[in-house]
Amino acid sequence: MLTIKSRAHDYTVEPFATLSDALRSITRRERAFYLVDEAIAKHYASALEADTSRERTILVHASEEQKSYDALTPIFLELLKRGLKRDGVLVAIGGGVLQDIGCFIASVLFRGLRWELIPTTLLAQADSCIGSKSSLNIGPYKNQIGTFYPPHRVLLTSSMLSSLPWDEIRSGLGEIIKLQLIKGEPDFRELMADLKGFKGQPEIIARWVARSMAVKQPYIETDEYDRGVRNLLNYGHTFGHAYESATRYGIPHGIAVILGMLTATYLSSRLGLVPVAHYQELRTALAPWHQPYGEVLKKAPRAAIFEAIKHDKKNTGDAVNCILTHGPGRMEKRAVNFQAELIPAVDQFIDRELS
Amino acid sequence: MLTIKSRAHDYTVEPFATLSDALRSITRRERAFYLVDEAIAKHYASALEADTSRERTILVHASEEQKSYDALTPIFLELLKRGLKRDGVLVAIGGGVLQDIGCFIASVLFRGLRWELIPTTLLAQADSCIGSKSSLNIGPYKNQIGTFYPPHRVLLTSSMLSSLPWDEIRSGLGEIIKLQLIKGEPDFRELMADLKGFKGQPEIIARWVARSMAVKQPYIETDEYDRGVRNLLNYGHTFGHAYESATRYGIPHGIAVILGMLTATYLSSRLGLVPVAHYQELRTALAPWHQPYGEVLKKAPRAAIFEAIKHDKKNTGDAVNCILTHGPGRMEKRAVNFQAELIPAVDQFIDRELS
Repeated sequence: MLTIKSRAHDYTVEPFATLSDALRSITRRERAFYLVDEAIAKHYASALEADTSRERTILVHASEEQKSYDALTPIFLELLKRGLKRDGVLVAIGGGVLQDIGCFIASVLFRGLRWELIPTTLLAQADSCIGSKSSLNIGPYKNQIGTFYPPHRVLLTSSMLSSLPWDEIRSGLGEIIKLQLIKGEPDFRELMADLKGFKGQPEIIARWVARSMAVKQPYIETDEYDRGVRNLLNYGHTFGHAYESATRYGIPHGIAVILGMLTATYLSSRLGLVPVAHYQELRTALAPWHQPYGEVLKKAPRAAIFEAIKHDKKNTGDAVNCILTHGPGRMEKRAVNFQAELIPAVDQFIDRELS
Repeated sequence: MLTIKSRAHDYTVEPFATLSDALRSITRRERAFYLVDEAIAKHYASALEADTSRERTILVHASEEQKSYDALTPIFLELLKRGLKRDGVLVAIGGGVLQDIGCFIASVLFRGLRWELIPTTLLAQADSCIGSKSSLNIGPYKNQIGTFYPPHRVLLTSSMLSSLPWDEIRSGLGEIIKLQLIKGEPDFRELMADLKGFKGQPEIIARWVARSMAVKQPYIETDEYDRGVRNLLNYGHTFGHAYESATRYGIPHGIAVILGMLTATYLSSRLGLVPVAHYQELRTALAPWHQPYGEVLKKAPRAAIFEAIKHDKKNTGDAVNCILTHGPGRMEKRAVNFQAELIPAVDQFIDRELS
């Protein structure tokens, strides 16, 4: 069990073998309300039937459209109508979208409600479940609304990962790779060695879920509100987010992050920050983990990519803040000139570097 | 200048002679966006024209309908469309509704934006401007959504209070009276002496604004999230909120709080917590500050009052948590039986105690 410090409240990450075990450990179960990803509800119908309450369950369609400020109104109203009170508990069961929704609702309902999270994707288990953040869309603006409000408990159920589709595994690996690149050369090489011949083995997943959290923990504890060193965890994300939105979410998040890290590294090599050999090595090593989504990216309207980068919430004024790299373990935040440096690098990357 | 501690960030309360002086001191003025109460915008058109930006101003109709989760969407969209970025500043100018809206938007936009508050009512200056809270309605549910996120600065402009209508002055006095009753017998008597012959004299107002903050500060600093001792500041509010909503906001908030304090004191005397003489003295002393709103309350549907009390967010289970009194300076939180104790006391109070 891991304990993570937060300005709001410290919280724990606790391992469970199965969903049923996790459900039976929920705090104040008789007053718990469940937000459950529709797909998870179908796949785990009997466990949920046995250990939750149908009257206190709301099924949620996990989509970008649902992950928006306005789309939460019916969920708030249902929870209040069905009798959720301030001594209740909100339980979110699903991937990133369920986490965003659960976090936001818990942080503003009754000015802060106890909530517990059962992350069901590799992406959520290895990365997003710690760090307190929620992100919501509003109108055409992506991820501009949110809060810092960690769950009071994170319940990890490793067995739920075994049934994930391969692209969801690869999407989780995207963030795992990012965290080990941020950690440094030896950890990154060790991960790459483990991924040779990786076909979803649970023991490999479990090891890198734990090691990912270990990398992330000090960043979120020392800079929970993302005003300094935690920015480095955004490596690959300025571009990744733009690739996701310009393809209308046709690229899974963590795979877009892989493409984003390659872009950031390519840009870093063009700016002379890192030897081109490092970029080339990374391009080769990461190819199996993103192909064929490079093709999806090539078809995206280029203007939409640049528009999204420009509207990224991390920007101030005209330059674009990017996390660039001097090599593994040596990321740096830099303001990049949009017209002169960023646009040509992204154009070249997409046109010539992707296969 | 007062400095108030908060989990989110410490903040200051700073006095200014006029609105113009306050506006000229706004932080990062070239990137400030203004949410302004429509009525204030009309009354102070020239000061606002001179010292704010029309392109960065959004007028807000200060109503219960506007103070709701859904009604904020157009404001969020306008702010984003007009170019508010994370290094910008949100400035709210108005009373309680503008404060609720400004606080909520600032707390969730970009996961927390700098904001500064210019409270323009006595209620907001003496009470609500410190304490971090926002409250929003959603659907039929009042004040169930909110956050704790104080402004980074509170700018007090005493001259703005001189043009307030008498009922708005009395509404502010309601919270001022409440705070001095919480403080204790000598402070309450001193206030009552000052209020004899009170006709809105600025020096009396200024004195009791300062003394109200002095009473409130230790409560919000030691229990910002309202889980313990700060609950006592809710004296009069369980009933007051119900009276407001059952009369469709036909009673100004602070005046409803006066009626609520009388109800809580009457209930306390029925339960044997306080001598009936204390209740009777309070009834006489406070009459000029609430009349003729007792008549408005008498006409409210009784069922709506009880429904509102039952749905008050402070309730857990069947009993209703009320702040009762053993006398000035001796408030206590107690679970009161809804059917046997609360309903008959409220019925009697409204039917026989109000004139």
